[in-house]
Amino acid sequence: MILTVTLNTALDVTYRVPRLHAHTSHRVTDVAERPGGKGLNVARVLAALGHEVTATGFAGGPTGSVVRGLLAASPGVRDALVPCAGTTRRTLAVADEASGDTTQFNEPGPLITSAEWSVFLERYEALLADGARAVALCGSLPPGVPVGAYAVLVRAARAAGVPVLLDTSGEALRRGVAARPEMIKPNAAELCELTGTRDALPATRDARRRGAHAVITSLGPAGLLAATPEGSWQAAPPRTLAGNPTGAGDSAVAGLLSALVEGLDWPDRLIRAVALSAATVRAPAAGEFDPRTYEEVRGSVKVTPA
Amino acid sequence: MILTVTLNTALDVTYRVPRLHAHTSHRVTDVAERPGGKGLNVARVLAALGHEVTATGFAGGPTGSVVRGLLAASPGVRDALVPCAGTTRRTLAVADEASGDTTQFNEPGPLITSAEWSVFLERYEALLADGARAVALCGSLPPGVPVGAYAVLVRAARAAGVPVLLDTSGEALRRGVAARPEMIKPNAAELCELTGTRDALPATRDARRRGAHAVITSLGPAGLLAATPEGSWQAAPPRTLAGNPTGAGDSAVAGLLSALVEGLDWPDRLIRAVALSAATVRAPAAGEFDPRTYEEVRGSVKVTPA
Repeated sequence: MILTVTLNTALDVTYRVPRLHAHTSHRVTDVAERPGGKGLNVARVLAALGHEVTATGFAGGPTGSVVRGLLAASPGVRDALVPCAGTTRRTLAVADEASGDTTQFNEPGPLITSAEWSVFLERYEALLADGARAVALCGSLPPGVPVGAYAVLVRAARAAGVPVLLDTSGEALRRGVAARPEMIKPNAAELCELTGTRDALPATRDARRRGAHAVITSLGPAGLLAATPEGSWQAAPPRTLAGNPTGAGDSAVAGLLSALVEGLDWPDRLIRAVALSAATVRAPAAGEFDPRTYEEVRGSVKVTPA
Repeated sequence: MILTVTLNTALDVTYRVPRLHAHTSHRVTDVAERPGGKGLNVARVLAALGHEVTATGFAGGPTGSVVRGLLAASPGVRDALVPCAGTTRRTLAVADEASGDTTQFNEPGPLITSAEWSVFLERYEALLADGARAVALCGSLPPGVPVGAYAVLVRAARAAGVPVLLDTSGEALRRGVAARPEMIKPNAAELCELTGTRDALPATRDARRRGAHAVITSLGPAGLLAATPEGSWQAAPPRTLAGNPTGAGDSAVAGLLSALVEGLDWPDRLIRAVALSAATVRAPAAGEFDPRTYEEVRGSVKVTPA
């Protein structure tokens, strides 16, 4: 089983409008709702790849109930979310049909009490001991969760002998990296914030020195750059695919983790991650991927030593 | 008891953002949720005036549950909403702190089945017979409800001897007026759509000829224009009040209905409606009013024959 942690789960709502005009009124022509937060996207992609997945984190209030209902309807993800008294946040994407652009609104997350955080830690340790073969720690921290939370979770995974991938940003990433996770997967902006270095290759290597065993940097449409104990590589898709990049990074995480538990070597892990990212760009939403694009791109990702 | 009907109830969500930029991402700094749909706003104002109120209409899905929960927490409104299988819509107002402007997104309503519509009609007739002294029919029709719905509801109220105020627009208003409601309360745009006449006084009189016993036209900040069996009047607030006009019309409906059941004459009904509208402009949201403004304006509304 692969364990995904989403402390700040979300209900991802998408509104379609014919044309967005700020400061006017709009009739929404279509409403779509999906379970959200990076770790739930990772879980759904892992399940679609045929892996056993357990999703934990927090869910609360009416929005949390909707998230859990949607998760129950999405095959293959076991729900081990911990209830919280606050209400799970919504994220709203307003898709403008005229321009193709999206306007995003992100609600603040629920306030997590220290008692809820303690309940979560117990559940997390039990899940690690319950046959977890890898764990993904994903996304932002909701209010009330200590900023060093990911360092605690990384150390617990290491103590349990479970490899851990950390995908977050800012101070939560900085503290988490110091606890020596197996992998981190920053994008260029997150990496620059962590290391102060704008150039991707030196920054990726710098991030390794800060504690991560392997650093896999997302270069957007250009693919991935990896600095690992076995070597450094760049993995690039055969061409840039037009589409919606939301969730491409989460699919890369699913690719890296699934390939890790299947015992693949680094070049093959990177190929899978790049192909899944590309296939997500061609899918309607985060947590989903286009299987045809995945098969097609998988055969033609170029991996070169960096 | 005063009965309010809201066939297309809503969860009114307000997001506060520091500044709205279309096609970018925003952190929402504050989220507020209120029961919505015109009839629920009317009900809350009536309850605040000390009247017994029963609210019916449809509510369904997770959003419907939230609406009912908020209604239960708002004192004095009895919940007689009829469950539906579809999900109650949300309306989202994004308030831009920099400009003070609001951008509005309105979801489509749930699809009401003919079986649900029949259940509602039974409930409505039972409520009319259960001591209703007046009824307000408010707002848009959700998908699936016949466009002649308000005509049916007006006739049922008339058959039960209960005076009825209709506040809607378009074809639903046109059909409803023909069933001869006690009052309609169009704004200038709705009245022009109904009569084809842009000039408020002849259009108000024309609307009476189409079937409504009294027509009370909202002139926005200029007050109300009424054509009634007892005469025609304009009622104007002492000055234009700056604020948020959302819900001012619903408060006028509450003013007209409460004054009707209290046996006030037309000039006093109009004074109350104008003062409540003005006090709602000074309140944070629809369904609420500022009591100090209400008392102050009530003493200085000018009513002149029209």
